[in-house]
Amino acid sequence: MEMESGWLWIKGLPSRSLANTYEIYRQTTKIATDDPRKLIHSFKVGLALTLVSFFYYFQPLYNSFGVSAMWAVMTVVVVFEFSVGATLGKGLNRGLATLAAGALGIGANHLASVSGKTSEPILIGLFVFIQATASTFVRFFPRVKARYDYGMLIFILTFSLVSISGFRTDEILNLAQKRLSTILIGASTCVIVSICVCPVWAGEDLHNLVARNLDKLGSFFEDLTAENFRPWEAAQTENGSGVSVTRLNSVLDSKSSEETLANFARWEPGHGRFMYRHPWKQYLKIGNLTRQCGRRIEALINAYLNSSKTQAPEEIGGTIQDAFSGMISESGKALKEVASVIETMSRPPSPNPHLANLKIASKNLKSLLKSDFWEGYSNLSQVIRVAAVASLLIDIVVCVENIADAVNELSSMAHFKCKDGNNRDFRQVLVEIPSVSRVGNDGGDAVNKAEAGRQVLNV
Amino acid sequence: MEMESGWLWIKGLPSRSLANTYEIYRQTTKIATDDPRKLIHSFKVGLALTLVSFFYYFQPLYNSFGVSAMWAVMTVVVVFEFSVGATLGKGLNRGLATLAAGALGIGANHLASVSGKTSEPILIGLFVFIQATASTFVRFFPRVKARYDYGMLIFILTFSLVSISGFRTDEILNLAQKRLSTILIGASTCVIVSICVCPVWAGEDLHNLVARNLDKLGSFFEDLTAENFRPWEAAQTENGSGVSVTRLNSVLDSKSSEETLANFARWEPGHGRFMYRHPWKQYLKIGNLTRQCGRRIEALINAYLNSSKTQAPEEIGGTIQDAFSGMISESGKALKEVASVIETMSRPPSPNPHLANLKIASKNLKSLLKSDFWEGYSNLSQVIRVAAVASLLIDIVVCVENIADAVNELSSMAHFKCKDGNNRDFRQVLVEIPSVSRVGNDGGDAVNKAEAGRQVLNV
Repeated sequence: MEMESGWLWIKGLPSRSLANTYEIYRQTTKIATDDPRKLIHSFKVGLALTLVSFFYYFQPLYNSFGVSAMWAVMTVVVVFEFSVGATLGKGLNRGLATLAAGALGIGANHLASVSGKTSEPILIGLFVFIQATASTFVRFFPRVKARYDYGMLIFILTFSLVSISGFRTDEILNLAQKRLSTILIGASTCVIVSICVCPVWAGEDLHNLVARNLDKLGSFFEDLTAENFRPWEAAQTENGSGVSVTRLNSVLDSKSSEETLANFARWEPGHGRFMYRHPWKQYLKIGNLTRQCGRRIEALINAYLNSSKTQAPEEIGGTIQDAFSGMISESGKALKEVASVIETMSRPPSPNPHLANLKIASKNLKSLLKSDFWEGYSNLSQVIRVAAVASLLIDIVVCVENIADAVNELSSMAHFKCKDGNNRDFRQVLVEIPSVSRVGNDGGDAVNKAEAGRQVLNV
Repeated sequence: MEMESGWLWIKGLPSRSLANTYEIYRQTTKIATDDPRKLIHSFKVGLALTLVSFFYYFQPLYNSFGVSAMWAVMTVVVVFEFSVGATLGKGLNRGLATLAAGALGIGANHLASVSGKTSEPILIGLFVFIQATASTFVRFFPRVKARYDYGMLIFILTFSLVSISGFRTDEILNLAQKRLSTILIGASTCVIVSICVCPVWAGEDLHNLVARNLDKLGSFFEDLTAENFRPWEAAQTENGSGVSVTRLNSVLDSKSSEETLANFARWEPGHGRFMYRHPWKQYLKIGNLTRQCGRRIEALINAYLNSSKTQAPEEIGGTIQDAFSGMISESGKALKEVASVIETMSRPPSPNPHLANLKIASKNLKSLLKSDFWEGYSNLSQVIRVAAVASLLIDIVVCVENIADAVNELSSMAHFKCKDGNNRDFRQVLVEIPSVSRVGNDGGDAVNKAEAGRQVLNV
């Protein structure tokens, strides 16, 4: 039995390894086609490393740098990151930390050596201990962790090496100078290759990510409109074909990647459409509001999908269907408009018309919820479901408005240019709640409702 | 003017630096009191580094290791992480990657040297380029990124250094052996100090984090009950004193820290209550369900806070208030019970009674929503708000049930022990929707409702 299973295992080996090879091939092509910059980045690392390797090869350079040349190789491997910002940040961290720690280490070394032969090792041990403890603790400070974590690591490393090496070599200044210059060469090779060969800017990535997430929410709404979102006719799309919430997950989970990109972006010089000191923090604010909006959309879809199948109450459907569809499609358009403001970095000459529509539609819906329009319907469970969707929609409109405000702030902070061409259509298309008329309702009531509706529009 | 402002700047210097010093002091004490393990970790790093430094001091060790002893210092600084799992993972990654890359590097070096004097540098350059490109690309594979990212980095570094250094030294095997042994000494110092001095286990942290998040949701519900949650009397707590959603943010944003901890935990050997191969992945599942539940609670609170001030319709309040309060408090209790199952790693002998209550209460509420109980109320906007809250509550109950199921799975996967002591009170306290009675309703109707209610209970 055991032998047989062993034989089967050996027999299965070629097909399994073939399957593994295919899996690796599949993943490779997937990553390379999803984001070709990752493939390019790999070649860039290879290039930078090969360039630096020649420091070892050419005799004159070898003579002047010696063993420390390996620090250049190490610097390239450790410092070269995917985006320019991360590479610059790590390079600067490494350079400055080496400088500071080297100076302090030499000082500590000198202090220990003048104190006498017996106390020297004790003093140096004490210095290393205190420095490592303090620096490690400082790494827990949130602000240090976000920007200077790598610098603190290099600080501990260099200080320890420099102060300890004093035991053995007296040409410590010479060593320090060599190490600094090799690190400089390694880091600048990284930065030059990173910037000159197909640069990946963290700031641009952040900018695009925030715009794309807004656009995704907009498309989500547009798909809902296309599917003729009818909350009282749930369960027809329960297989999740169209309104699956999982599509929103990439938006909901983007917080940490946005924060990382913002940290990197602050190291970057001006590039393309972005100046140095572009308001990257504002993108984080917009991102947070986007996720809030996404969570409310999730709540809307959950309320929609979880409700059980019921017949469509034609009367309600006819009256309010248009209002809902209108609000959803206007929300989608407003979000897409806002996303395109970010994407094109240009603000339209007139305010977002869809937002004005949304405000009015939301007000109308609110007054409808308060009115006695619902009274006397036979199937109240449906009324209630429609009402739940309505209140979630009103919440979403508030979110959309907040997002638009934040993008407006961004556009003035970053001096987005004004769009001149008046080729776009800025008619104010009002989304009106259709006049209330319903079977079995007396005429006088209908007149009252219409009156109330007009009053709301005048508020 | 300019001189004056300069003078003011100088004059302000002492007070500003005093303020900065105070700020640093404040942050230090905050971090140290919030999590004293961070302070202990700092001392542990200092200790490990000082220990390794003595490799340089004692003459015999210095002679046998030479310059490579600095690799031990470097290994300690780079490998020592906050948790045992992270330290072990980095140490193993570093050791194995050095071994593999060293062997491959020697092979590449040998291949290049037999090919002839002129083609040697070209071949080595080619090897370095191909290896760096391929390894950098492999780092983008999600599974490699999660567990072996640091190993790949060290692989690139060591391969480059070894294959390049072949240009210069012929005692490459001797060098490789020295480097490996120093790395071994550095890494094992880290691991020993990390495990022996107040160890921080990533697995235990993950376990506690997941249990604490569930407990937080439970407490949130309990606070709601204590504040007498009345969705139709919103705006009385609009200052956010009690039901502020920001308290939930730490739960909602815990995804990435949970995933990091789970990755570290898989490196850890058995410790305390956890075996090796504890089902860490199941914690991620529970964490995801917890966040989903948290998002729905957020939706509930938003629906509650955003609604405008209205009078309390006493009739509805009296009828349904108890049902809501009951569901919220039972949800809180169920979550706290589930949290304590994780925390104590012991399952109670009988199933969670609060869950059974919740199921019945949810069923009752559903049937109430479908019934014509609501009909004829004068203020429908309040009915609608209550109904919206009701449907969100039903959603939350589904979430709580899912969480309980996932925790049950965990308890059987990880063989939680059964609690024996029957000192707990497992009476099945049914939360019934109070019998429907309302002003202006005829008696026959009330009897029908009670009948329907009983039917529901029998389903």
